[in-house]
Amino acid sequence: MQVLDDHRVAARLVEGRHTHVMLGKALAKGEKLPIAVTIGTHPAVTFASCTRVPVGKELGFAAELLGGEIAVRQCSNGVLVPDAEIVLEGFIGSELTAEGPFVDITGTYDPVRQQPIIEFTGMHLKPDFIYHGILPGGDEHKILMGAPYEPKIYRAVAGVTEVKNVLLTKGGCGYLHAVIQIKKSTQGDAKNAIMAAFAAHTSLKHVVVIDEDIDPCDPLEVEYAMATRVRGDRDIMVITGVRGSSLDPCQLDDGTNVKVGVDATMVLGHEKDFLRATW
Amino acid sequence: MQVLDDHRVAARLVEGRHTHVMLGKALAKGEKLPIAVTIGTHPAVTFASCTRVPVGKELGFAAELLGGEIAVRQCSNGVLVPDAEIVLEGFIGSELTAEGPFVDITGTYDPVRQQPIIEFTGMHLKPDFIYHGILPGGDEHKILMGAPYEPKIYRAVAGVTEVKNVLLTKGGCGYLHAVIQIKKSTQGDAKNAIMAAFAAHTSLKHVVVIDEDIDPCDPLEVEYAMATRVRGDRDIMVITGVRGSSLDPCQLDDGTNVKVGVDATMVLGHEKDFLRATW
Amino acid sequence: MQVLDDHRVAARLVEGRHTHVMLGKALAKGEKLPIAVTIGTHPAVTFASCTRVPVGKELGFAAELLGGEIAVRQCSNGVLVPDAEIVLEGFIGSELTAEGPFVDITGTYDPVRQQPIIEFTGMHLKPDFIYHGILPGGDEHKILMGAPYEPKIYRAVAGVTEVKNVLLTKGGCGYLHAVIQIKKSTQGDAKNAIMAAFAAHTSLKHVVVIDEDIDPCDPLEVEYAMATRVRGDRDIMVITGVRGSSLDPCQLDDGTNVKVGVDATMVLGHEKDFLRATW
Amino acid sequence: MQVLDDHRVAARLVEGRHTHVMLGKALAKGEKLPIAVTIGTHPAVTFASCTRVPVGKELGFAAELLGGEIAVRQCSNGVLVPDAEIVLEGFIGSELTAEGPFVDITGTYDPVRQQPIIEFTGMHLKPDFIYHGILPGGDEHKILMGAPYEPKIYRAVAGVTEVKNVLLTKGGCGYLHAVIQIKKSTQGDAKNAIMAAFAAHTSLKHVVVIDEDIDPCDPLEVEYAMATRVRGDRDIMVITGVRGSSLDPCQLDDGTNVKVGVDATMVLGHEKDFLRATW
Amino acid sequence: MQVLDDHRVAARLVEGRHTHVMLGKALAKGEKLPIAVTIGTHPAVTFASCTRVPVGKELGFAAELLGGEIAVRQCSNGVLVPDAEIVLEGFIGSELTAEGPFVDITGTYDPVRQQPIIEFTGMHLKPDFIYHGILPGGDEHKILMGAPYEPKIYRAVAGVTEVKNVLLTKGGCGYLHAVIQIKKSTQGDAKNAIMAAFAAHTSLKHVVVIDEDIDPCDPLEVEYAMATRVRGDRDIMVITGVRGSSLDPCQLDDGTNVKVGVDATMVLGHEKDFLRATW
Amino acid sequence: MQVLDDHRVAARLVEGRHTHVMLGKALAKGEKLPIAVTIGTHPAVTFASCTRVPVGKELGFAAELLGGEIAVRQCSNGVLVPDAEIVLEGFIGSELTAEGPFVDITGTYDPVRQQPIIEFTGMHLKPDFIYHGILPGGDEHKILMGAPYEPKIYRAVAGVTEVKNVLLTKGGCGYLHAVIQIKKSTQGDAKNAIMAAFAAHTSLKHVVVIDEDIDPCDPLEVEYAMATRVRGDRDIMVITGVRGSSLDPCQLDDGTNVKVGVDATMVLGHEKDFLRATW
Repeated sequence: MQVLDDHRVAARLVEGRHTHVMLGKALAKGEKLPIAVTIGTHPAVTFASCTRVPVGKELGFAAELLGGEIAVRQCSNGVLVPDAEIVLEGFIGSELTAEGPFVDITGTYDPVRQQPIIEFTGMHLKPDFIYHGILPGGDEHKILMGAPYEPKIYRAVAGVTEVKNVLLTKGGCGYLHAVIQIKKSTQGDAKNAIMAAFAAHTSLKHVVVIDEDIDPCDPLEVEYAMATRVRGDRDIMVITGVRGSSLDPCQLDDGTNVKVGVDATMVLGHEKDFLRATW
Repeated sequence: MQVLDDHRVAARLVEGRHTHVMLGKALAKGEKLPIAVTIGTHPAVTFASCTRVPVGKELGFAAELLGGEIAVRQCSNGVLVPDAEIVLEGFIGSELTAEGPFVDITGTYDPVRQQPIIEFTGMHLKPDFIYHGILPGGDEHKILMGAPYEPKIYRAVAGVTEVKNVLLTKGGCGYLHAVIQIKKSTQGDAKNAIMAAFAAHTSLKHVVVIDEDIDPCDPLEVEYAMATRVRGDRDIMVITGVRGSSLDPCQLDDGTNVKVGVDATMVLGHEKDFLRATW
Repeated sequence: MQVLDDHRVAARLVEGRHTHVMLGKALAKGEKLPIAVTIGTHPAVTFASCTRVPVGKELGFAAELLGGEIAVRQCSNGVLVPDAEIVLEGFIGSELTAEGPFVDITGTYDPVRQQPIIEFTGMHLKPDFIYHGILPGGDEHKILMGAPYEPKIYRAVAGVTEVKNVLLTKGGCGYLHAVIQIKKSTQGDAKNAIMAAFAAHTSLKHVVVIDEDIDPCDPLEVEYAMATRVRGDRDIMVITGVRGSSLDPCQLDDGTNVKVGVDATMVLGHEKDFLRATW
Repeated sequence: MQVLDDHRVAARLVEGRHTHVMLGKALAKGEKLPIAVTIGTHPAVTFASCTRVPVGKELGFAAELLGGEIAVRQCSNGVLVPDAEIVLEGFIGSELTAEGPFVDITGTYDPVRQQPIIEFTGMHLKPDFIYHGILPGGDEHKILMGAPYEPKIYRAVAGVTEVKNVLLTKGGCGYLHAVIQIKKSTQGDAKNAIMAAFAAHTSLKHVVVIDEDIDPCDPLEVEYAMATRVRGDRDIMVITGVRGSSLDPCQLDDGTNVKVGVDATMVLGHEKDFLRATW
Repeated sequence: MQVLDDHRVAARLVEGRHTHVMLGKALAKGEKLPIAVTIGTHPAVTFASCTRVPVGKELGFAAELLGGEIAVRQCSNGVLVPDAEIVLEGFIGSELTAEGPFVDITGTYDPVRQQPIIEFTGMHLKPDFIYHGILPGGDEHKILMGAPYEPKIYRAVAGVTEVKNVLLTKGGCGYLHAVIQIKKSTQGDAKNAIMAAFAAHTSLKHVVVIDEDIDPCDPLEVEYAMATRVRGDRDIMVITGVRGSSLDPCQLDDGTNVKVGVDATMVLGHEKDFLRATW
Repeated sequence: MQVLDDHRVAARLVEGRHTHVMLGKALAKGEKLPIAVTIGTHPAVTFASCTRVPVGKELGFAAELLGGEIAVRQCSNGVLVPDAEIVLEGFIGSELTAEGPFVDITGTYDPVRQQPIIEFTGMHLKPDFIYHGILPGGDEHKILMGAPYEPKIYRAVAGVTEVKNVLLTKGGCGYLHAVIQIKKSTQGDAKNAIMAAFAAHTSLKHVVVIDEDIDPCDPLEVEYAMATRVRGDRDIMVITGVRGSSLDPCQLDDGTNVKVGVDATMVLGHEKDFLRATW
């Protein structure tokens, strides 16, 4: 949110997401949309708010993660909020203003956009409240942005082979790169997994598929698999003319991008050439 | 089923499918598996038996298709069967025999395999019964084999763009070729759709993606789209080293195959170059 | 021909074709070109007029097709015409006008061009005459346009291998797609046939080569060959930067296009993997 | 011909060529084939004997080249021969023997083959006769082998664009490499010319297409065109899996080969960037 | 060195390296080669012994690194040795034995080879000596093996563009992967740098070229550059049929391998699209 | 040098070369640069002046080539010159003028550039002096331009395999094409040699690698190697997006070019298929 003055901010509402839809409905009825902004909620609540659960299910999902109920409180404008260090109450109307430029997960600048204004009418602070800011392009930003896609990719890959783990790596901004760990049962499985991953998360740009003996969370292990199990002409799959992430500075003028999948698994039936000594 | 003598046949039970699993359980308990073969059931029942619904849900699914209940009858070995022209009762034991070669959907011969023997103990015929045989490699065979995958592909493509129709074509044996009709909203959508389709049906070999104005059910229309909307270097996507259908005679020795996706849609923003005159 | 008023039409005279050449000669001498338009001639005459026989040989060619002589009649401007339902007499001069846009075989609109005007001076109608119009982009248009090229391709392919049949398919607008049926005697023959076809008909865009057991006139059979006998990395030949048809909406800005040839024949020496069961 | 003893030689009769056909007919009638070998004929006769004119037309073709009649003489076995330094008379029967290894145009060894034996019954020598031997793999061998294909390629390329010259180069053994000089009228012409050439001479392996200002007979000029007018990613066309010459040591095990065409012409419309200074 | 019994070990002498050459000379004179093995030398000495300095210059190179002289001691067999925790004296003769399998830098097993035997005749230990073992496939092994190549690559890249840093990464076993940091002055520089690196270290398999703002020593930074600055069709260079490292399990049967270079630099002139926000 | 009037010429001083650097230093001190132009020096001196030896070493290098000392004479402006047919003395100042267009080694025109003016103040002529002009784009121009790069390439290739000869061919303007003769010891050596050559001479565009039995100086021999030892899909290496020579008219708008390397060597272990008969 970009501070405009002492009681107004500009905020980007992504088209099709819940708040954007709710605002559209309110404005269609000639009303403003009452909203509340919570800062410093329980991490499970923050995390739940970033997932793609159906409208109105976010708090329920957070409760599941916490293993119980979540208490809510009603703001003066009627909005229900969970426990938070800071609660801001207000309204969104039809007025737009220049928002940004903000830094996105790639660390580069987003364009300036015309976005709605939030007008705050009240603020609630806990005693000794903690201000929890999520830095644009920081690790928390990346993790919260990518988190919803890891299970989506996992489920999609599970439809084509036996998947063990899926990671959206920090080096890939938590969004553009995936490491997928599978247990191959046929030689072509990794390529099937790559296509399943690209179908599950269309912003994904690069995917590496690894075996069970490689730790997906250790970048050096993944690099080791690429060093010793990849033959460039056979194992690198380049897809041109495909939709990718608009955050990627490499996007072409026609709106397409280029994706690359790398099969860094051992050749089935030749495992003994690849297996590492243990002690 | 291959007739061995006047009361025994050999039948292929595909690994992992329901009958194969049930036989395994029976044999593990030292028992034979009581079974019944129905010939000439209601088409909705035949169709339902070919879908991939969970164990025991086939009749329920057929009932849904028929909009009501399905009456069942108990065979003398305890197996429940729906209404059929011919019902054969019997048992499967542990004995195996050479089965085949049978013709598969591609019209070529499957290998001979060691498969279980069904021993029949009784037969029920309706008066003036009709024998409904499904010819191997015939149209009914192709349709029943491909049918379960069209909705799977549809759902997968719907996850990446707006899908209008999905067809597994007869020319592709109802199994190896798909035509996918989409409404593009970004230039790269067709390539995303191709990968989603390959992920949804791993036996798929070739996919063509078309626009809304092309009839997916008319092979000449689809060919027309390829003639006028494909530029070979840009719109043909070749995936090597990937798992495909074992029924394809082109499968390589290492068990992989090669898939091809074709984007036969108009270039977004240049629709006027491609649109056809109407009268 | 585009009607301008009650006695004048605009007509496209393609550069280098007979009428265009004759007009050039007449204008060079300061004369108008006397012409006649016949509508509703014998199909053999119509067909002959679309072939690429040398100047003045069209009627002789039609006569050959009919197995005898063709009677001609002299118009008042001296032009000889065969029997026709309608005969229009007139002249072409040096004046140009905007012609079009007309619909071409692809069903899309040709550009508007500056073309000569035909001025009619007389008309002859048979009693109860039939008006035989050839619809732009209709099947007759496609067949008449493609017909001259099938024997050209046949002869060219016969120079490199044993050719059985050549078809310019309706799905390819009778012009852009060929199916070539050959009897292979070496493994590479199909690729040689593809190049021969592209050399014989430079507007050709896509070619599929099939075996003797596939019916080239049945699109589903040709598709079947592609489903079961093509391995995308080996059998698809993409030629960039080559001259194709200017009617193709995919033509690049520099006037080149991209051609694709597909070898959908069985691998020589492995026919048994591909042959279909017969009954 | 390989000398076996003082009156017999082994000679390769290529399947389908005239002598091979005539021997087949004679043997089918239970007869030997009477033949004569002429050494040291007029160059026009030697050249004519290497062309692909119909059976029995070689001498007539030679006469045309000489601008008149050719006198012939009858051997004692009835065979007619033109004027020659040496004439050997004899018969070919059904007996075969090991022939070779001889050196072919590439300078490498052909395999040893089972071939017919020629039994000589007489010899005629001119006074002070000259023995004219054609060295295997020498320049005369290359020129005589390639000569028939230059006009075939010329005619084929003339069907797709304006051709100025065709040369089978000495560096390409007079058989495997062609230089084709054209006058481009559209940007893609060179690629069309390449395919026409490959269709006209299926043993051709590499083709370079040049502009009118480059001398096709000067290898340094052709190399200059490649140095300054080729962009490797755009102008090199590689055709795999195609039939080529069995004389090429690079032929693959499946009998296919790989052809390469190079467009070394200027980009149409950018001639000024490429034209050379003159003085 | 592989212990054979209480005074003999087997040791691999790589063909062409100094000890191998010296042994060849000694054996040619009918003599054994006197040698000494030092364990636990100053790190500069260990490092120097792994570089590719000319014969006999290793100790001088170590001295330079240490900024002074190095004292040496003469063994009883005449060999001069630097200060070490353990010194083993002995001889190598002509006898060979099975050596290995040892683990190499990739962590996989080398083949067993026939190698010379070292026969020890004496041992010197410092009081409270430290045994310094270099674990096969451990970090020390990787660093010592790759170290000599970093300056070689640096110098080679400096010949084609402005190089800032070169790193053989730990994930690439200190030997197979390089990260090269350059300051581009023309758009193509990264590809020139890639070829220079492959020429300087022929065992190199994969190279990534990065800009000055990316830290080559931080794998996440390098991955970030690949995520945001690589377009797969333009920036990945695959070289097939080239000699690589025999330690790579992906080496083909014909002894060649496949190398991949990745240009992960910003497009020159478009730096503003790629630059990261700073705070 | 372009004649402006009877005592002034315009001359191109390439950025970074010695005279350009010296002029920069003089101008920085507010002085003109005294210079002398020698025409008709000993060929060794001319050759030495074109090499890339360090500043001030050219005459010493020429002396080495001549096997002795070189006498120099002092001009009236203090510049030392070797023996020459014509010596022109003068100064370069800060004034610029339009220079060109001159013809470069490719025979095409360089652009017109703003370059310094040389003002001549004196001239010395030998009696019966010979004017030795080097024609732009002539053979002498090409040889002098390419000569310094042959040893650079030789040394670079020697670092990756056993090199026998390196030639910058006349057909490649003495600058853009290299023929490299090697003695392969592993199958991939030629590709390593290609990359080494491209790294050593970044203006190089095309490289052919040949075996020891092929004469690199005979274009027909090199062409023969390409005809019989190249398989297009395996032996042609295309590098896109790389810096090449700005003299090449094919250079792309972004300043990159495309390089091609051709491995025209025999397949190791299959030499007998390729070796030529000798007599």
